[in-house]
Amino acid sequence: MQRFCVHTITTKLLSLEECLVEFPRRGVSGITIWRQALDGRDLGAVARQTRDAGLEVVSLCRGGFFPAVSAAGRQAAIDDNLKAVEQAHAVGAPLIVLVCGAVPGRPLAESRKQIADGIAAVLPAAQKAGVKLAIEPLHPMYADDRSAVNTMRQAHEICDVLGSPDGVGIAVDVYHVWWDPELKAQIDLAGQKGRLQAFHICDWMSPTTDLLNDRGLMGEGCINIREISDWVDATGYTGHREVEIFSNRWWGGDQREFLDKISASYADLYPEDK
Amino acid sequence: MQRFCVHTITTKLLSLEECLVEFPRRGVSGITIWRQALDGRDLGAVARQTRDAGLEVVSLCRGGFFPAVSAAGRQAAIDDNLKAVEQAHAVGAPLIVLVCGAVPGRPLAESRKQIADGIAAVLPAAQKAGVKLAIEPLHPMYADDRSAVNTMRQAHEICDVLGSPDGVGIAVDVYHVWWDPELKAQIDLAGQKGRLQAFHICDWMSPTTDLLNDRGLMGEGCINIREISDWVDATGYTGHREVEIFSNRWWGGDQREFLDKISASYADLYPEDK
Repeated sequence: MQRFCVHTITTKLLSLEECLVEFPRRGVSGITIWRQALDGRDLGAVARQTRDAGLEVVSLCRGGFFPAVSAAGRQAAIDDNLKAVEQAHAVGAPLIVLVCGAVPGRPLAESRKQIADGIAAVLPAAQKAGVKLAIEPLHPMYADDRSAVNTMRQAHEICDVLGSPDGVGIAVDVYHVWWDPELKAQIDLAGQKGRLQAFHICDWMSPTTDLLNDRGLMGEGCINIREISDWVDATGYTGHREVEIFSNRWWGGDQREFLDKISASYADLYPEDK
Repeated sequence: MQRFCVHTITTKLLSLEECLVEFPRRGVSGITIWRQALDGRDLGAVARQTRDAGLEVVSLCRGGFFPAVSAAGRQAAIDDNLKAVEQAHAVGAPLIVLVCGAVPGRPLAESRKQIADGIAAVLPAAQKAGVKLAIEPLHPMYADDRSAVNTMRQAHEICDVLGSPDGVGIAVDVYHVWWDPELKAQIDLAGQKGRLQAFHICDWMSPTTDLLNDRGLMGEGCINIREISDWVDATGYTGHREVEIFSNRWWGGDQREFLDKISASYADLYPEDK
């Protein structure tokens, strides 16, 4: 399936090597690699093996986490993002997804400024390496410690503040933004501005029992995924739909059976993507 | 303390009669009564006892939950809200807080329309009874099943759709809106429009371990409560600051000791409110 991508974190109990075998067997054509999956590996070999497996590297997850109380902390974050740029370049990932960061108890406006400054500091190296940076607005329930960027509107504002450079855009994850009454308008705007760089899917469980790791497989929850997908595609987006599920429940079972279900769920949702 | 209110749900292990004794001992001057605290009680007697205890009834919690799949379900919700209006009138509560509702898997725009319709249906009886209705925007993490109104901007839009009637306004709860980059502007607007009817406080824990019942005592978390309070007061708001904490942790301990801590925390936050 030409637009079907899975994040390595989704089946985190599988090694990267196992993903390279199991993903293509189920029609997956793209892979987003989480950095922990690269630990201890030769990145050039990963690029080769992924290509040999018939998988396109869609993006590297994740950079960001720019805000910090001290200047040294902020520099450490920038250094880590520069390392991510090198990693992305080495494995052939054209994009890094940014979870922008926040510091509990610090003003959100301050964190947002530090995020813009951090992106600006990393951007030249990213542009030189041909790696784009995608700001992922995170659900407002993560505003305390994961991201001070909680809506697409804010992500656009950061792009604007930076002067709309080539190479900085937005990653839309339905889990984070499905509730936003401005969602369609902001997706349209992202299309017009050429900022729509990635599209992540999963579902919102009712009830949700854990703030981090209770995401649903598409169809298990209440998100209007297909409708949002159609909004995204209507902007001209032709990239992958990336399945990114953090779930203690699914991680507690057989990962190959989980992949079977992901593949079936994707095919149900996008029957035209053969 | 003249602007210090506590919700009965905050110390839910105490009976209403115990609240009427324990709240005033700690400087509490206002009480918001949750409807379950009225079960089996004579409402006229509650009004008398509350007054005799020196407590002002600030509001009744909660009405709302208007959206439903069937017309019968929506009518049942309206009937329940009409009952809430009678209860509020009987206990002397000038305001009902609306948790507006949502139906998992139904379009949020549809729920928002049903919310506006529901408020419109209840409004005449509320106006006749001298009871105001306050739309409480709920945190986006409750968009699936508790409220399709997740920002102050949306609450304003519903007020506008209804024609800005007297008697419909907004309840601001820092827990739900602290992350919103538009918060100050929307509070200002609520002041200008005469819509700011209630102000609820508690704190956001980092990490938060439960989506519903892990709120913090003021000062335990990361919300800039005093700053938001000052924005609210700058609009001319002189009403109570209502302590509304749902917490399995605090509910697991002695409720009188918890009230002591609430009182101390309030006094720390608002030293000028003697």
